[in-house]
Amino acid sequence: MDIHDLKTPALLVDAAALDANIDTMATTRPGDRLRPHVKAFKSTEMARHIAERGNHHSFCCATLREMEGLAAAGLGRDLLLANETLDSPRLALLAARPDSRITVAVDSPETIDVAVSSGAEVLIDVDVGLPRCGCDPGDAEALGAEARSRGLSVRGVMGYEGHVVGNPDRDERAVGVEESMTLLRAAQHSVGGITSAGGTGTFDMHPLTDEVQAGSYLLMDTEYDRLGLPFRQALTLLATVISVSRKGWAIADCGLKSLGMDHGEPAIPGYEVFFCSDEHTTLLPSQESGLGLPRVGDRIRVIPAHVDPTVAYHERLNLVAGDDVIDSWAVDLRGW
Amino acid sequence: MDIHDLKTPALLVDAAALDANIDTMATTRPGDRLRPHVKAFKSTEMARHIAERGNHHSFCCATLREMEGLAAAGLGRDLLLANETLDSPRLALLAARPDSRITVAVDSPETIDVAVSSGAEVLIDVDVGLPRCGCDPGDAEALGAEARSRGLSVRGVMGYEGHVVGNPDRDERAVGVEESMTLLRAAQHSVGGITSAGGTGTFDMHPLTDEVQAGSYLLMDTEYDRLGLPFRQALTLLATVISVSRKGWAIADCGLKSLGMDHGEPAIPGYEVFFCSDEHTTLLPSQESGLGLPRVGDRIRVIPAHVDPTVAYHERLNLVAGDDVIDSWAVDLRGW
Repeated sequence: MDIHDLKTPALLVDAAALDANIDTMATTRPGDRLRPHVKAFKSTEMARHIAERGNHHSFCCATLREMEGLAAAGLGRDLLLANETLDSPRLALLAARPDSRITVAVDSPETIDVAVSSGAEVLIDVDVGLPRCGCDPGDAEALGAEARSRGLSVRGVMGYEGHVVGNPDRDERAVGVEESMTLLRAAQHSVGGITSAGGTGTFDMHPLTDEVQAGSYLLMDTEYDRLGLPFRQALTLLATVISVSRKGWAIADCGLKSLGMDHGEPAIPGYEVFFCSDEHTTLLPSQESGLGLPRVGDRIRVIPAHVDPTVAYHERLNLVAGDDVIDSWAVDLRGW
Repeated sequence: MDIHDLKTPALLVDAAALDANIDTMATTRPGDRLRPHVKAFKSTEMARHIAERGNHHSFCCATLREMEGLAAAGLGRDLLLANETLDSPRLALLAARPDSRITVAVDSPETIDVAVSSGAEVLIDVDVGLPRCGCDPGDAEALGAEARSRGLSVRGVMGYEGHVVGNPDRDERAVGVEESMTLLRAAQHSVGGITSAGGTGTFDMHPLTDEVQAGSYLLMDTEYDRLGLPFRQALTLLATVISVSRKGWAIADCGLKSLGMDHGEPAIPGYEVFFCSDEHTTLLPSQESGLGLPRVGDRIRVIPAHVDPTVAYHERLNLVAGDDVIDSWAVDLRGW
């Protein structure tokens, strides 16, 4: 099958770039030193490929749906819900599976209650500077003690330095990581167990962190591309030019419903993106490219600005080698 | 069933507000004077409700998936793909259905070719000021003649004044609509047939337009709320507070993957939204509200900034009356 046989818009994954990204990461963070983050691709078939090629068998999830899907697919050897949940019944069903090890982030007495009633293991989630979930670092010891006193297995601490991962200055980024990890290691010192932290933007700045949670490195986007990381752009959105105006613009059949827009417009090499609407992207040749307008019916490849919310709009990831479609993976872990 | 039994995030539709919006619109634009736009809700069950309560039986679609779903559900009496497509095979399958009337927008010789080979009727799509699809107004007559010479049924012209629908100044908006409709009526004069135009923001500014294409009025969002329209906010996103920080913020379990973000942050009455990430929204009580922080486990209702790309992330619309869930409609027309 050829990409021209795909209906558009369609997500393409360059299989060679994906495998290069898996290999690059596995060299720096081999085996369980990496906990691949499923939220970036939401596909059990892709998780299986990462397990096989990258030899990573512990996964990180943002939703219970992702956890349930991986467990059902036999990929539940060590699943972390790196997020707080109040949904005891679903967590309990997961924790009761004989084939899966289930750990959940907790940062409050209420979320410890949920872990107790569901029988999951826990990581104490620590606020290391990102204004999101995580307890005050000074509260980690008490929460860990409370969890243990209630019979929980406390595997350690986690803390995501999301406020620094996007800093394009590598030195500043490294300083930020170290500030956050100093807080996390202090918490780990009092709680015990492992440290779990990091992401694609800081994957090689965690020599002392037991496991790094990264997912965007697999497919990449324009936002992470700014950071000068050793990962290749594997994901593009194939679109069809459906209209060309004599005023000098063309319109492709992709838009707000096929591209996560929180990081702004997507990129189209050789073109400027004028704007996106629900199912349209208006584009113009860039001055530098010297390109002319495309023709109606031409296919173009669009690079998403933010990989995670882009993939969450799609049903399939089409694996390609050049213009050949060599496989198709269901994005089966969408929703909640 | 009570909303507290729903897993979150979950879309809620206030059934009374929805019906009030249907009734308000049907008073101004009765029957086929309105062509409800399916892209805003992507649900055949909701389309059926609009047909029954609003007595509108001609629908407008942005994708072939929406067209196929409505036709298969027996709602194909008069379906317009208000968008260009190069996908002859799928359009031909639709046009061959004995129970459906299929019309497609065309703005080029290439899209006319598609209509000819598929057997669909056409509207000539005219650029009335929005830099998107649509032929130059001066080309409409020739395109209409070409379409007719090739045996097509040309039903008239369409042109979307999307560049003015969001102007919060009603008088300026009306002036913009009139400028665009002057162009469209000139095209209609040369092509013949009907005029199809407009949207929620300009629904009552089209006395001379045969049919208005509007969808957002049904559910509404914060962007349209700024326009002072007579439609009520029917759509909210139910979320659970999963973490509260002693630094003064709380985190709800909704984010970039449950909210279209191209119009910016969602609104939470009584709170300020600090920022959204994939599955989180960090919020703080607003100064004016005098509210305290919510507690872990509390449920909150979030108002999306843009209805269309929000709904496209979800599997279901939960119809509610107060806290009672009275029905659930599948969002079955997602994808392409």
